[in-house]
Amino acid sequence: MNGVKTGKTIVNGQCLNGTEVNGKVAHDTKLYVSVNGSLYPAKAKSRRQRWEVKPSEMANNTLNPIRAIVDGMKLTPNQDKPMISLSIGNVVENIQVDFHCTHEYSCVSACMHCKYSPCQSAGYLKSRQAVANFYSCPEAPLEAEDVILTSGCSQAIDLAISVLCNPGDNILVPCPGFSLYKTLAVSMGIQVKLYNLLPEKSWEINLQHMESLIDERTSCLIVTNPSNPCGSVFSKEHLLKILKVASRHCVPILADEIYNNMVFPGSHCPSIASLSSDVPILSCGGLAKRWLVPGWRMGWILIHDRNEIFGSEIRQGLVKLSQRILGACTIVQGALESILNNTPQSFYNNTICFLKCNSEICFNELSTVPGLCPIMPSGAMYLMVGIDMDHFPDFKNDVDFTERLVTEQSVFCLPASAFEYPNFFRIVVTVPEEMMVEACGRIREFCQRHYRPSSRDSNDLDQ
Amino acid sequence: MNGVKTGKTIVNGQCLNGTEVNGKVAHDTKLYVSVNGSLYPAKAKSRRQRWEVKPSEMANNTLNPIRAIVDGMKLTPNQDKPMISLSIGNVVENIQVDFHCTHEYSCVSACMHCKYSPCQSAGYLKSRQAVANFYSCPEAPLEAEDVILTSGCSQAIDLAISVLCNPGDNILVPCPGFSLYKTLAVSMGIQVKLYNLLPEKSWEINLQHMESLIDERTSCLIVTNPSNPCGSVFSKEHLLKILKVASRHCVPILADEIYNNMVFPGSHCPSIASLSSDVPILSCGGLAKRWLVPGWRMGWILIHDRNEIFGSEIRQGLVKLSQRILGACTIVQGALESILNNTPQSFYNNTICFLKCNSEICFNELSTVPGLCPIMPSGAMYLMVGIDMDHFPDFKNDVDFTERLVTEQSVFCLPASAFEYPNFFRIVVTVPEEMMVEACGRIREFCQRHYRPSSRDSNDLDQ
Repeated sequence: MNGVKTGKTIVNGQCLNGTEVNGKVAHDTKLYVSVNGSLYPAKAKSRRQRWEVKPSEMANNTLNPIRAIVDGMKLTPNQDKPMISLSIGNVVENIQVDFHCTHEYSCVSACMHCKYSPCQSAGYLKSRQAVANFYSCPEAPLEAEDVILTSGCSQAIDLAISVLCNPGDNILVPCPGFSLYKTLAVSMGIQVKLYNLLPEKSWEINLQHMESLIDERTSCLIVTNPSNPCGSVFSKEHLLKILKVASRHCVPILADEIYNNMVFPGSHCPSIASLSSDVPILSCGGLAKRWLVPGWRMGWILIHDRNEIFGSEIRQGLVKLSQRILGACTIVQGALESILNNTPQSFYNNTICFLKCNSEICFNELSTVPGLCPIMPSGAMYLMVGIDMDHFPDFKNDVDFTERLVTEQSVFCLPASAFEYPNFFRIVVTVPEEMMVEACGRIREFCQRHYRPSSRDSNDLDQ
Repeated sequence: MNGVKTGKTIVNGQCLNGTEVNGKVAHDTKLYVSVNGSLYPAKAKSRRQRWEVKPSEMANNTLNPIRAIVDGMKLTPNQDKPMISLSIGNVVENIQVDFHCTHEYSCVSACMHCKYSPCQSAGYLKSRQAVANFYSCPEAPLEAEDVILTSGCSQAIDLAISVLCNPGDNILVPCPGFSLYKTLAVSMGIQVKLYNLLPEKSWEINLQHMESLIDERTSCLIVTNPSNPCGSVFSKEHLLKILKVASRHCVPILADEIYNNMVFPGSHCPSIASLSSDVPILSCGGLAKRWLVPGWRMGWILIHDRNEIFGSEIRQGLVKLSQRILGACTIVQGALESILNNTPQSFYNNTICFLKCNSEICFNELSTVPGLCPIMPSGAMYLMVGIDMDHFPDFKNDVDFTERLVTEQSVFCLPASAFEYPNFFRIVVTVPEEMMVEACGRIREFCQRHYRPSSRDSNDLDQ
């Protein structure tokens, strides 16, 4: 019974439920607690009598569909075959090593960068300036104050959604699309409306469908270009059409451009902001993909606001939100200018060349596999493959299909249910070429074994 | 008019407000949008006709009192005196250099650590194990799965509050106290109740006051030990009393122990978890303070749950929340084991010795300054100084006082209004000793100039 037996007029915690009173009861029959000579009214608060600690609704509502699906899968590889994982967007190891040799020195010198200041929660001015210089172009000029540095692109997306949306608002999200948008939004009480991409048009947006979803509570339109999971790249014409929809309905755009410039030769990928004269855009990016260092957790938001629609309020909102966790690691911030300015063109070229080559191997191989329908990407590091489930009666769905692919062939691809797009699976093309070939061969063997004439055809024959 | 003139039955966005219909109106008089041959009901949604993008309530409610106060101050140093900033908890530069030499190698080798996996959003198992080993003790054993690595201690506190509290709940927070608790809580719609610390008892908690604030919506009790801004360190006996209150009311503890072990010789600072047999505790810490690398953004949550009150749910909640931004930079994660295991005792000793020496200089100097009442710290890197405002009629309050101290003496201390504790200011004791001496001399000069017999005394004389 600590701190309550001080000889002052007190009512201890237990007594406030009205069962027992220790000490003097104040004369007006209300209960008081005396603290330092002052009387505090002791309202008859109900207090907990036993332990009950539950996670918050936000924690409960933070759902990662990839984890939900993968954790539920029985992944027991075939012991006779070494495992090949094509499931997670990891990095190109051989190219990565080159990069590290190049930038090791930057990081060592940056080790000294460990001062911090709450004033710089959005990043060192020098580092923000380096990002602004790197991405600035005449059509979409950027200054240091247009850049917010974050702990990875995930935090950039988190801050962008957080600043634009209130609970009860809705956001438009591509389907299939990166699962983080929904994970973040739902945990914040923001509704997610999925707009369809069209596989038959190289995953262009179904603009009419997207437009039909907009209402007065639509607080942002998320555009992922190049796309995860599709590896698609929008043409300039398509981007202009997207901007027209946003402009017509006055909806700002959150552009997830983490795969910016990771585009195969022949495609061109302008940033959406460089094509817009009015739509305010928060473009999210980072070092993770193009520079192949996801673990370094260096991301950014580029604020494009040609017509001052965001104005100072959204900027200040972003800075305020960045003060919650004080942003990106200063070691990487210190190395940022050097990474952006001194990475040789050959590094980017090697990466693109590698990804394109692997994509072509994968596409060409799987195009001739019965029951599969791969869609050739134009960038990023992914390839989506349709499964004609009618021809695979052994499997209930894409989850079942990919689970059995592990069991029999030790090849793990992510079922596209994780992207709200059943009957597809996603392949990550970052493994070494010989592994890519081997994986495709095993997928072929698997499909040939399980492929059946479609059940409809069989039924027709029966009747 | 993109994507809508496809020859299909469509109603374009503008028309849904009922003013005009392009295309066929469906036969049942409702409006439909045809997409890919499917008809979507086109509800008469109201859509925005003009741009209006405002920051979310969360962004608006993310208020950093330090910034709010400091940004409002007119800080114009005296040009004849070089500026001395005692305002921000920055690091001890000379000791820091030693540290960097020691750990540069760890960081270089850790540069290779840049793989990531969504499965490891709570950190590499090896790095979590290193933290667990470092903090585990017989009274409070820890395993790797009891450790969640975060982007700095700020994110650790963010996740801990996020997992324990729902909007409408309240948390108990020390006054004076670190402003981040309130910044985070208020932005999430969580009420903050301030419990008083007692300056006359070396900033012990007023336990009766604290207990009087607990009600059934109290979802956690934040205990900061050692304290920012006070530099105080609780005795084992006091910690046991705090635990009793938490136990009696079944309120879990969020222990902010970022200054853990930064305690002057003579004091002892057990972790609160090592004293608890029942109260579930989330202890937040990180590299920032003890290892003097705030910018590296490496923090952690230690989950202490002797009686399985948190159970698997709170653990899973923390892991789920960590998936939002995927945690700490892998460069630092890679170096963590080496930093924790190979930092020589002399490094810690030198830091403590330096901080204690500066604290004593500052305390001794300011104790003899008329109108000031410094309170000697026992740890951390701060010292609070009371201002007897009655004796300083030139100034309205502590903000005014510290602002003028910059104008006249080029010494910047943080007014304790930033910690909800007016008429005090906080000194950071991390500057070199000669600068500490110089700063104290200037504060003395400033006070001597403005000190007056208290207005009450003058009035007495007048009457």
